[in-house]
Amino acid sequence: MTIQSFIPPHRTLMGPGPSDISPQVLQALSRPTVGHLDPLFINMMDELKQLLKYAFQTENEFTIAVSAPGSAGMEACFVNLVEAGDKVVVCRNGVFGERMRENVVRCGGKAVVVDNEWGEPVDIKKVKDTLDANPDTKLLAFVHAETSTGAVSDAQALAALAQERGVLTIVDAVTSLGGVPLKVDEWGLDAVYSGSQKCLSCVPGLSPLTFSAAAIQRIQNRQSPVQSWFLDQSLVLGYWSGEGKRSYHHTAPVNSLYALHEALLVLKNEGLENAWQRHQAMHEKLKKGLEAMGIQFVVDEAYRLPQLNAVYIPDGVDDAAVRSVLLNDYNLEIGSGLGALAGKTWRIGLMGYAARNENVALCLKALDETLNK
Amino acid sequence: MTIQSFIPPHRTLMGPGPSDISPQVLQALSRPTVGHLDPLFINMMDELKQLLKYAFQTENEFTIAVSAPGSAGMEACFVNLVEAGDKVVVCRNGVFGERMRENVVRCGGKAVVVDNEWGEPVDIKKVKDTLDANPDTKLLAFVHAETSTGAVSDAQALAALAQERGVLTIVDAVTSLGGVPLKVDEWGLDAVYSGSQKCLSCVPGLSPLTFSAAAIQRIQNRQSPVQSWFLDQSLVLGYWSGEGKRSYHHTAPVNSLYALHEALLVLKNEGLENAWQRHQAMHEKLKKGLEAMGIQFVVDEAYRLPQLNAVYIPDGVDDAAVRSVLLNDYNLEIGSGLGALAGKTWRIGLMGYAARNENVALCLKALDETLNK
Repeated sequence: MTIQSFIPPHRTLMGPGPSDISPQVLQALSRPTVGHLDPLFINMMDELKQLLKYAFQTENEFTIAVSAPGSAGMEACFVNLVEAGDKVVVCRNGVFGERMRENVVRCGGKAVVVDNEWGEPVDIKKVKDTLDANPDTKLLAFVHAETSTGAVSDAQALAALAQERGVLTIVDAVTSLGGVPLKVDEWGLDAVYSGSQKCLSCVPGLSPLTFSAAAIQRIQNRQSPVQSWFLDQSLVLGYWSGEGKRSYHHTAPVNSLYALHEALLVLKNEGLENAWQRHQAMHEKLKKGLEAMGIQFVVDEAYRLPQLNAVYIPDGVDDAAVRSVLLNDYNLEIGSGLGALAGKTWRIGLMGYAARNENVALCLKALDETLNK
Repeated sequence: MTIQSFIPPHRTLMGPGPSDISPQVLQALSRPTVGHLDPLFINMMDELKQLLKYAFQTENEFTIAVSAPGSAGMEACFVNLVEAGDKVVVCRNGVFGERMRENVVRCGGKAVVVDNEWGEPVDIKKVKDTLDANPDTKLLAFVHAETSTGAVSDAQALAALAQERGVLTIVDAVTSLGGVPLKVDEWGLDAVYSGSQKCLSCVPGLSPLTFSAAAIQRIQNRQSPVQSWFLDQSLVLGYWSGEGKRSYHHTAPVNSLYALHEALLVLKNEGLENAWQRHQAMHEKLKKGLEAMGIQFVVDEAYRLPQLNAVYIPDGVDDAAVRSVLLNDYNLEIGSGLGALAGKTWRIGLMGYAARNENVALCLKALDETLNK
């Protein structure tokens, strides 16, 4: 076996993530590594916290990036906030709601599931009824933007329901952060995690995370230790804290954090509102083109994510063959369906740097040529 | 607050990690991101497994990189192999042995600790006596190369003791992999984790991991689910497996894996034995220079790691002031002491790409000038 350096082609990434990454962010990624306790690096981490607060629209002091992918960010929320026996209402309308339920169970919690069809948003009324029927509920967990279906749920309304009952919220914002409005403080969300590789257009491997004061208080009042050492945020806080001496927890992924800093700076310079509008505008353009080709959306327009376009594969079309032609002949990646929608749908991402005119044009033309070959 | 792009200086990294990274590896890091399910990427992951097997000197089919730092690799071993009530003998002669004990407790296991002084290797006789006194022991956990002290323990002898008793081993090889002999199959180690940012000279954030067939069997025979979803290796295996269709688990840190592939290729092209010899030769050179300056080593020569040189800070010298001058005036990072050795020692790393003549020369001259200013 002779192994050579890996030289990847330049793909246009329009799947469910990782999304396209700007040359500027890749350049930041490869800057010289410094020590993770270097004063210059610690200063950069402080800036990164500020930038994350802007992206999340929060003043939460605990706003960091977990040194691992979004699924570790999800787990960080559950292992820190759930104790054995705690009842958690989990909304499930796609793959990631089910993963949340799995997390509750592995923490020894009691999951009460509110199910909705894949492609539909979480039903507010059902959640209200479930909370009413379970007054001992400690946490409400839901996915803001379901990456597996492309549906957005009303996080603000769900958080309001939880607040009325003194229930804390755990919110999956992996695909929403930077792509559609997400207002952590205004909506009163408690534990929110995201991923670096979606609308932030950074490399995969980091999970932005923010905890409200109420979430921190809940962690501080735990009766039992957090089952994970790596994800125990009371230990991590000592490392990310700006006050005094940093306590060593683990070696931060230095270069990936350079890239996240740069990607968040790009977002801040564009402005969140502008980024949201750009995602919407690119979605409209893509939608117009797809519908002209007779392709239909899975999700109703009222709760459709602009950045994640789940569409039905036209009758008689070979799913894998089309994606393979797009990848091999056009260097264009679109996503397959996941879970219940596997084989029936494609997922076309317009996330972050991928939400550009030239990407939409390429995607429409390449798809048109491939389907009509 | 005006935040600019972060432009780090070029530091020479001679602390306990991250270590110096070659331009070649940083270049690989910043190649265009492809999808984590792209056939070309999956092929690269297969190559990466081969390269990891070489580095670990193993034929273990389960040989991967955890998508998170070494402490997550440690936790992956414990959460998968320890079930509630399991007795684990943990050897503690520095920071990381204590972290292992912490992991056992958080998994609900019963830790029996074998203590040795910081700076000493694990005492084989003590371990033997402890295993004799605890015939119901399921696992033996120890650190091969203690990053906090610079002492190497006899992993081969410890593994032999465990094998005699049918006890599996969990081995921390974070600082040993690539720097000193580590022979997973020949020595019969069962669960071994490392870090990307030490002697492999890759960016921090990944944890190479290998499980023997016996370790896999133990995982498959578990009575209870693994408490971590993210670190449940039975799920991860489906993603890293070369056979048939990949099952989606989490989004791999694509670019960091490019860098690890390149760093391992560098190691393979040099050859493991040559790398071990280079680390030893650079250590001899550093040692000669330091001793000429009257600086003494913490660890006895018989079990001293060449890649992690813990030395006593000379009397009357201000620890932080010296490290600060080295960093600010020479762009040279050396490490402070950790835990019981904090304030008393420095740790000078000669790891991977840092183990070069020019680094040793810079370190000796800069230290000499600073101490005699």
